[in-house]
Amino acid sequence: MAELAGNCLIGQSGGPTAVVNASVAGIVSEALNHGCIEEVYGALNGVQGLLGEDLIDLAAESQQAIRGLRHTPGAALGSSRAKLKKPQDFERVLEVFKAHNIRYYFHIGDGESQDTAAKLAELANAQNYDLRVIGVPKTIDNDLSVTDHCPGYGSAAKFIATTVRELAIDADATAQNDIVTIVEVMGRNTGWLAAAATLAKRRDHPNDPPHLVYLPEKPFDSAKFADDVRRILKREKHCVVVAGEGLVDKDGNYVAVEGGEAGAAAHFGGVGEHLRELVETQVGGNVRVVRLGVTQRSAAHLASKTDADEAFLAGQAAVKAAIDGESEKMVTLVRGDTDQYTCETSLVAFSEIVGNTKKLPGEWINEDGVSLNFQFYRYATPLIQGEVTLPYDNGLPTFARLAAESVDKQLPAYEG
Amino acid sequence: MAELAGNCLIGQSGGPTAVVNASVAGIVSEALNHGCIEEVYGALNGVQGLLGEDLIDLAAESQQAIRGLRHTPGAALGSSRAKLKKPQDFERVLEVFKAHNIRYYFHIGDGESQDTAAKLAELANAQNYDLRVIGVPKTIDNDLSVTDHCPGYGSAAKFIATTVRELAIDADATAQNDIVTIVEVMGRNTGWLAAAATLAKRRDHPNDPPHLVYLPEKPFDSAKFADDVRRILKREKHCVVVAGEGLVDKDGNYVAVEGGEAGAAAHFGGVGEHLRELVETQVGGNVRVVRLGVTQRSAAHLASKTDADEAFLAGQAAVKAAIDGESEKMVTLVRGDTDQYTCETSLVAFSEIVGNTKKLPGEWINEDGVSLNFQFYRYATPLIQGEVTLPYDNGLPTFARLAAESVDKQLPAYEG
Repeated sequence: MAELAGNCLIGQSGGPTAVVNASVAGIVSEALNHGCIEEVYGALNGVQGLLGEDLIDLAAESQQAIRGLRHTPGAALGSSRAKLKKPQDFERVLEVFKAHNIRYYFHIGDGESQDTAAKLAELANAQNYDLRVIGVPKTIDNDLSVTDHCPGYGSAAKFIATTVRELAIDADATAQNDIVTIVEVMGRNTGWLAAAATLAKRRDHPNDPPHLVYLPEKPFDSAKFADDVRRILKREKHCVVVAGEGLVDKDGNYVAVEGGEAGAAAHFGGVGEHLRELVETQVGGNVRVVRLGVTQRSAAHLASKTDADEAFLAGQAAVKAAIDGESEKMVTLVRGDTDQYTCETSLVAFSEIVGNTKKLPGEWINEDGVSLNFQFYRYATPLIQGEVTLPYDNGLPTFARLAAESVDKQLPAYEG
Repeated sequence: MAELAGNCLIGQSGGPTAVVNASVAGIVSEALNHGCIEEVYGALNGVQGLLGEDLIDLAAESQQAIRGLRHTPGAALGSSRAKLKKPQDFERVLEVFKAHNIRYYFHIGDGESQDTAAKLAELANAQNYDLRVIGVPKTIDNDLSVTDHCPGYGSAAKFIATTVRELAIDADATAQNDIVTIVEVMGRNTGWLAAAATLAKRRDHPNDPPHLVYLPEKPFDSAKFADDVRRILKREKHCVVVAGEGLVDKDGNYVAVEGGEAGAAAHFGGVGEHLRELVETQVGGNVRVVRLGVTQRSAAHLASKTDADEAFLAGQAAVKAAIDGESEKMVTLVRGDTDQYTCETSLVAFSEIVGNTKKLPGEWINEDGVSLNFQFYRYATPLIQGEVTLPYDNGLPTFARLAAESVDKQLPAYEG
């Protein structure tokens, strides 16, 4: 493979995770190892930066700042849910790439957003512009079918499991009051995050909280729910319920989505309050609702070291693949088949990603529909191992902030 | 003071904090230093254990377990919001004390619950039964006027500030979307917890999130709220709001309390959803609501070392005071008047505690009504210093569980 000389660019897309910036750090530090990569740029705010030519010079950042990204939540480059839509949007981005001699584009995003990267690569091909595009996955939802797991999931899982273990101890202390604690977690279409709460159980203590876990994979039935809660209150004197925000009834309709169609994305959630009502009207008891919300993806103070390291590794792997001449592929994580957990990276063609949502396998869910069996624990436990050491200053963790030195614009503003 | 030989008993009351068990550990370990204290018992589930004669032998616990209490959330002895009401309830408890030769009673609870301890002491006096009763304060609300601060507050403050700092970084990453992030925190009558969120700001960065903090001390005005949010969105492109659950309007009515009178305690909360509606109808924008709920008092994984150490110290101080002949008093924390933070314990008579709710001083709140000045930072910053090192097993923090060996009952069951 002939060496391709030029500059590289990183873009972030979609909701952040606790470790998405570790992938940025992995890309930047690996890019600097390769002489054929001259400048290392970042696009501000995802596709908005691509269209607006808002690029920053990442090689000019201090090493401190790039190292700090390994434990900094949010999206250091800014993110966006906007998408490139019109053909001229794609044309414009390619113009920006040409103006800055971008020959390597690394796209960090969830499965859906890799589609944008794929289309950019196609357009470059059609114009005989030599460009290598590699995707890096990120999503706390863990719903990508082409990879064993997604960077971001392990940290969210560790945070949810820890939080549920802690609040269950609190609830247990006043158990004689028939308290029902409802924890609403993210996961619009899959139960990976809700299932993660069950990691809070101690080994060989299946009756430990969380007692009931409701997964989007299992149609929700109010009558069964009320029975479940009654059964647990009788046995335990209190009940810890975990519910994924994307619960659906037997007809496939969401059980609780606030607001209407407009802005539905932001309005997602409300399952906790819906279940509160069900308990109050059908079972009785004192209900507490916790809605973890964005804390699930921003709790860097409780990130999984395994996850943070794999996110960094995925970034490095993307650069190595591009240097090796790969393009139009996304990095995946591949688990070794030995008892001892190991994880390597591989690649998958963009064409194989789109439209595949990985659900929790039905055979990992117990017959009661509200608990997981050993196959889930075997899968998820390695992903939450290890703690990330954060620097603390004045009692609080400190996070990296990029100096974000702008790259001079070469093109007139884009009117869209 | 003549030495008083006999057994000691510990009771917990009210909602747990992340460090309330550290006070139990302080009492147990100090009690074992004094030969005149023979047995060290705990009452299960607060007043229920006192009435039911459900006592456990704390001296029989492993040293490991007692040490583990220093970082274990919840109430290890169980707690209860029930109160001793009828005169015969108090008579019964004193009978239990006599049956087990309890000469030292340590009551860990909030301000209100110290009243129970006070009445028990009075009854013992009236019956010439030699009993020393010392209270140990605990509450995340920090609303006790007789002490500089309350064990439990520092850890809740550290957790809230860290969480808000993290989720603000997440929100900032997608700032171009006019996102309003609303974080509902506890605090029924005071804004100590809401104010703690402002510790998330970096020094000399008053415009850092959280941008708007609504305190129960300041009457809530919907029109001003909408103006505040608009102003921040214009300046920052996103807005982080923190609201105490106990916000009241100008007439002193709660802005949002779910449910009716019945079970009002459990139903508290809902301010987040109320503010969401206001933003959506009066300002527009994408709203995210986070309700931290009980995680604020159970997040032992992010406890303040200063707070945990002071909670332990308060337990030790209670025992030392009782050995010195003190009774009918509660331990308080006293801050030194030097620049360098120091904290010692003192005592206050039970009679001086009841009915005094410590509000945030008005002169600590800026004129805008939604931010705090240096006086609050000077007060609160020392309380969140230091991290508690937790043992982790298999990716999650592990917590102590008491063996809870029962003490033989001496009395017939209480019919009440």
